[in-house]
Amino acid sequence: MKRNPFFLQLSPNYLFRELKNRVDNFALLNPERSLISLGVGDTTEPLGTTIAESLSQAACDMRDQELYMGYGPDQGLLPLREKIASVLYQDIISPDEVFVSDGAKCDIARLQVLFGQDAVVYIQDPSYPAYADSSRLARSIVGKEGHRLSYLSTLPEKDTLPHLEAAPEDAIIFLCSPNNPTGVAFQRSELSSLVDIAQRKNQLIVYDVAYRAFIQGDLPRSIYEIEGAKKCAIEIGSFSKMAGFSGIRLGWTVVPKDLTYSNGITIHSDFLRLVTTTFNGASILSQRGGIQALSPEGLEEIERQILLYLENAGSLKEALLKKNFIVSGGEHSPYVWIKTEHTSSWDAFDYFLQETGIIVTPGIGFGPSGEGHVRISGFGRPYLIESAIRRIESL
Amino acid sequence: MKRNPFFLQLSPNYLFRELKNRVDNFALLNPERSLISLGVGDTTEPLGTTIAESLSQAACDMRDQELYMGYGPDQGLLPLREKIASVLYQDIISPDEVFVSDGAKCDIARLQVLFGQDAVVYIQDPSYPAYADSSRLARSIVGKEGHRLSYLSTLPEKDTLPHLEAAPEDAIIFLCSPNNPTGVAFQRSELSSLVDIAQRKNQLIVYDVAYRAFIQGDLPRSIYEIEGAKKCAIEIGSFSKMAGFSGIRLGWTVVPKDLTYSNGITIHSDFLRLVTTTFNGASILSQRGGIQALSPEGLEEIERQILLYLENAGSLKEALLKKNFIVSGGEHSPYVWIKTEHTSSWDAFDYFLQETGIIVTPGIGFGPSGEGHVRISGFGRPYLIESAIRRIESL
Repeated sequence: MKRNPFFLQLSPNYLFRELKNRVDNFALLNPERSLISLGVGDTTEPLGTTIAESLSQAACDMRDQELYMGYGPDQGLLPLREKIASVLYQDIISPDEVFVSDGAKCDIARLQVLFGQDAVVYIQDPSYPAYADSSRLARSIVGKEGHRLSYLSTLPEKDTLPHLEAAPEDAIIFLCSPNNPTGVAFQRSELSSLVDIAQRKNQLIVYDVAYRAFIQGDLPRSIYEIEGAKKCAIEIGSFSKMAGFSGIRLGWTVVPKDLTYSNGITIHSDFLRLVTTTFNGASILSQRGGIQALSPEGLEEIERQILLYLENAGSLKEALLKKNFIVSGGEHSPYVWIKTEHTSSWDAFDYFLQETGIIVTPGIGFGPSGEGHVRISGFGRPYLIESAIRRIESL
Repeated sequence: MKRNPFFLQLSPNYLFRELKNRVDNFALLNPERSLISLGVGDTTEPLGTTIAESLSQAACDMRDQELYMGYGPDQGLLPLREKIASVLYQDIISPDEVFVSDGAKCDIARLQVLFGQDAVVYIQDPSYPAYADSSRLARSIVGKEGHRLSYLSTLPEKDTLPHLEAAPEDAIIFLCSPNNPTGVAFQRSELSSLVDIAQRKNQLIVYDVAYRAFIQGDLPRSIYEIEGAKKCAIEIGSFSKMAGFSGIRLGWTVVPKDLTYSNGITIHSDFLRLVTTTFNGASILSQRGGIQALSPEGLEEIERQILLYLENAGSLKEALLKKNFIVSGGEHSPYVWIKTEHTSSWDAFDYFLQETGIIVTPGIGFGPSGEGHVRISGFGRPYLIESAIRRIESL
């Protein structure tokens, strides 16, 4: 068997693996140092009580002959899709347009199959590395017609929007709001102008709202709050950060029925075909847990966790501001994005590790514009966050 | 956005969707008829008690601060990989070579990314449609060098092996044993000869053992029981049919460390990179359930279910033999494969529906050699299987 040459298009190390290697090495050389991991963005608060109980009940039901269930429905349990449509989208989308997934990363990869080998992809930069990595595995990034993978630099300190005008007709545009890693969420007017351009240029926006639960106030939580978005956008959501489901695995993708290819064929039926061919649904247990997470009690449990993470992030931001770092995020987002004096973000990573024992994430892992930045995460037990803050204060 | 032309390479309807449409139509026109669904191969027995309890306990643990877990390890929980290696493989493979997945279908699709756009794929025919469908979505099936998707006809009534000599050097070969749909499992000597050819021709065998738990006696349950297979085979397994996990979602893929591309680079590291880029692991709950399923109590619970399904399939086979059908399977497999007098397998499907109200699966859905056959499934409640047998007897 021959090697798929697209593997050569990936950087040799996946960000979080390289990070783990550096930390392991540091720990080995400095066994006396206590480290605080605010690198990988992973939830730390236990599941809400009623949500955990619903998961447990779903498992118990499976030993009952009448309640046992094999393969779930193609697009996911209807009550879950109804809850997603009504609770998260106020019915501006329909349950038929929701595809339940086992998480955002998985559906990002599945979407690459939908887009095909000739797709021209533009990625908000910096952003979640899975957009670029899955694009690099899906196609040759240099085609006859030019580059098929480009970045749209969007740094908070420059206060610019992704320049969609620079992307050609029919391009695929990956956007993430609230952005991972910068923590910045689009304003309504900003998102509106992006949708306008995409519609005019027949571009398809893949809009990642994995962090939507962190938005406070009136900022848009979904691209479909913008007129016209149903004709130019697919939206990807996740229960991972919203409900602490990173290990439980549950997400969703919205493919509006109005969304068509340039030739007028609807995308919805192809996506249905794609998921039935390459996926067998999220665990029924996770789906049952998701239904409870979107009930009134579940939403209260979720909200408590979100506020705790936001408080963590806000406190970190405050401590960094006092030390004159240039930062963004820390509101509407669990992340704080730090502009550092170091030109290499791996140097900045090493600086934080050496000086504070805090593990952050080097910005370069999120795209070329991430150079000279690091991300620090508000996901952590409050006592650890407090300890991290003391260490930052003594820098 | 432009449509990925590979969607045109798929038949317009996914088998099980077309089947559902025909059944719905029949039920509408014949509301008085009671139907018995032995079409889709889906488990019907409730989960074993200790397995369900372990799933439930895993959910309860997630509300405990000390026991809560976010993202699981890249390749899956170590205790699960250890159990798979020791219990299912008697340690002929190591836990490091096991990648826990959310099911066989999902990993079949992920493997297509590993193989890339120029891969030449040969598929045992008939077999599980996901091999062909995911291949058709992954690449142009006609390349400059010729066809990239071919079938290896392997009908029980002809008693032939997949003719690997017909496949070129470096080809990918999909094999399934015990075969879905024919129910036939490879003999040790047969599998040995297939491994020999694959090794000599640098072919890679993808060996699907989703139905391995149904094998009785000394037939090989894994391709790694054959000398040399670690140098030419990836194996895909699943808890779906083994433990009733079709809705729980859990499987595994074995990528031996000895396995290399033709250029000598190991495949294992690419597959690790692929799964960390496009997947975030099976649900922690499902993984905990899998650990219990492979404990002594869990294995007893599983065995009882397997024997029940085998008894169902055996009884169906007996009834069909009495009616002079030419059949295979029904031992080492939950399926019975029927050669029919109808040239079109959809006609045979309609025949069974009209005459008996039994829903079977048309053979054409499993590949071109499936024409003139149907598959009947032993997955069903015993009282329904008995009722189906009476209907067959009165044909």
